[in-house]
Amino acid sequence: MKLILVGFGNVGRGLVRALVQKRNFFLKEHGMSCEIVAVVDGHGAVVDENGLSFRRLLRMVEEGNLIGSERKLGVEIIREVDADVVFELTPTNIKTGEPGLTHIKTAMRTGKSVITSNKGPLVVAFRELEELAKKRGVEFRYSASVGGAVPVIGLAKRILMGNEVLAIRGVLNGTTNYILTRMAQEDAPFDIVLKEAQELGIAEKDPSLDIQGIDTACKITILANSVLGIDAKLGEVKTKGISGVTPEAIRLAREAGFTVKLVGIASKRTLEVGPKLVPIHHPLAVSGTLNAVTFEVDLAREITISGFGAGPRETSSSLLGDLVDVYQAISQRG
Amino acid sequence: MKLILVGFGNVGRGLVRALVQKRNFFLKEHGMSCEIVAVVDGHGAVVDENGLSFRRLLRMVEEGNLIGSERKLGVEIIREVDADVVFELTPTNIKTGEPGLTHIKTAMRTGKSVITSNKGPLVVAFRELEELAKKRGVEFRYSASVGGAVPVIGLAKRILMGNEVLAIRGVLNGTTNYILTRMAQEDAPFDIVLKEAQELGIAEKDPSLDIQGIDTACKITILANSVLGIDAKLGEVKTKGISGVTPEAIRLAREAGFTVKLVGIASKRTLEVGPKLVPIHHPLAVSGTLNAVTFEVDLAREITISGFGAGPRETSSSLLGDLVDVYQAISQRG
Repeated sequence: MKLILVGFGNVGRGLVRALVQKRNFFLKEHGMSCEIVAVVDGHGAVVDENGLSFRRLLRMVEEGNLIGSERKLGVEIIREVDADVVFELTPTNIKTGEPGLTHIKTAMRTGKSVITSNKGPLVVAFRELEELAKKRGVEFRYSASVGGAVPVIGLAKRILMGNEVLAIRGVLNGTTNYILTRMAQEDAPFDIVLKEAQELGIAEKDPSLDIQGIDTACKITILANSVLGIDAKLGEVKTKGISGVTPEAIRLAREAGFTVKLVGIASKRTLEVGPKLVPIHHPLAVSGTLNAVTFEVDLAREITISGFGAGPRETSSSLLGDLVDVYQAISQRG
Repeated sequence: MKLILVGFGNVGRGLVRALVQKRNFFLKEHGMSCEIVAVVDGHGAVVDENGLSFRRLLRMVEEGNLIGSERKLGVEIIREVDADVVFELTPTNIKTGEPGLTHIKTAMRTGKSVITSNKGPLVVAFRELEELAKKRGVEFRYSASVGGAVPVIGLAKRILMGNEVLAIRGVLNGTTNYILTRMAQEDAPFDIVLKEAQELGIAEKDPSLDIQGIDTACKITILANSVLGIDAKLGEVKTKGISGVTPEAIRLAREAGFTVKLVGIASKRTLEVGPKLVPIHHPLAVSGTLNAVTFEVDLAREITISGFGAGPRETSSSLLGDLVDVYQAISQRG
């Protein structure tokens, strides 16, 4: 498999490191060998159609930039370089989906399968991308866009196949879950805990997308489209953040056996994000930066999955799961 | 797909009901149509090579027996009737694996794929059955044998493919988890709570396989073989039950932030079942009859999945997930 990586931030670097470290595992377990033939980001590109050397790749990861890069754009590399799979790992832009959207379309149009962690293109153009992939006969996977390392989409689409999914409830944002957990533990107000989270690097300098619930709403939009088959738009998700949650409200909830979580809900009738009471012993009531999703289904009733929702190494778990899946799909086609 | 069902207890009847109810769903979602061409249990067999009518099947489910059956054995039906898949759903015998073991071998030798919920044959002859399936070019699935509705094996083998599984920790027996949960809630001794569970039908009249940890040890043996690739035997699992757990021990654990669970552990170094302390906020610390499994893996670190570990409708979730999976595998082969 020849791979192009577009985007060389935390996620891209984590992926390169995992791919290099685990190349023998993939060969032995799945019969899959991979070469990275190009890495490109906003600063330039490095290309070797025979596969970049592991030494060079690891040096690039350590130094955090593309050593010896030439001035080329992502779209140019995707168009010009021969490859099986493009990893689209640029930052999320939920307004335009760019530059990810153009990267993905260009890849598909040149016959390349796409694996992405980028919510932007999925929120802006889910149907269009699904259809384009189908039309061009390429694979399209986006497990890492929801839940980080938690295989939410794969579980629904490739494992719970006997079930009809009736509703999805998710704690899908580690930053807000950390803040709510700390507010409960310390009986502390939102502002103080947010500052603490920023100092620890858990919350961003501008945390508005997280705390206003917009990041969760993006993930609910993606789940509604991919798992429930609803043509849902981000603007249709009724969204409320956590800045209005008080220590008093959390205390009252706990006295009644509940905890307050920022929960995203997707069903055929509801698309919603907001603070909700979750029974304290329910598996969805995960602490700290963990993510969790409960599927309400017709046969198994409820299945909950949880794990780490962020982190470069954790995200590479989903990206590489998708890669093996794409490899198997391509191999079966012959 | 032509299906033979061997075993018509709770699980078999639940499967027939789900298959009949959801036939349109399977056709629409997966393009899969199914006919049940034979049902056989210890009392006899009903056969119709064109597919038994839904009316007759549902009447059989309601009355709990095979209406109009002829005196034939499972092996005879499996050998004589043309079918794609055999569901082996007879009761578990962990000593000999029979009659399930012979049913499964006969099915494979006559070119039929096998889906089973029966732990017996898996504990007794895992390697042999995997190899026989491979040799005969048929599919072999056993998701329902571990975790009931919780897709433990599928998650590990078909979703976490980028990861190496380092260890598996599971709360895999609903009866013992119910007893431990009630002991904690009521500060009540083991004997009293066991009696309550028996009155509610949650514990069996002879609950020894559950409370001695043997049922969990069987599941750990299956997970060690299927997920970790270890040629593990049931006798190698160091097994301790819950009858020695006291309310006092549970109280002390809670004061320190822990709960007591019957945990099965499988790793390359450890095969063990016994009462263990689990942090009260860890996703593995599920209550009541729920099952949960935590995979410790190299990239995603920890993934936990939980849900209902028993019940005929819940078990059909796993059986039918396997059926769609087998259908897709057979279709791709052409």
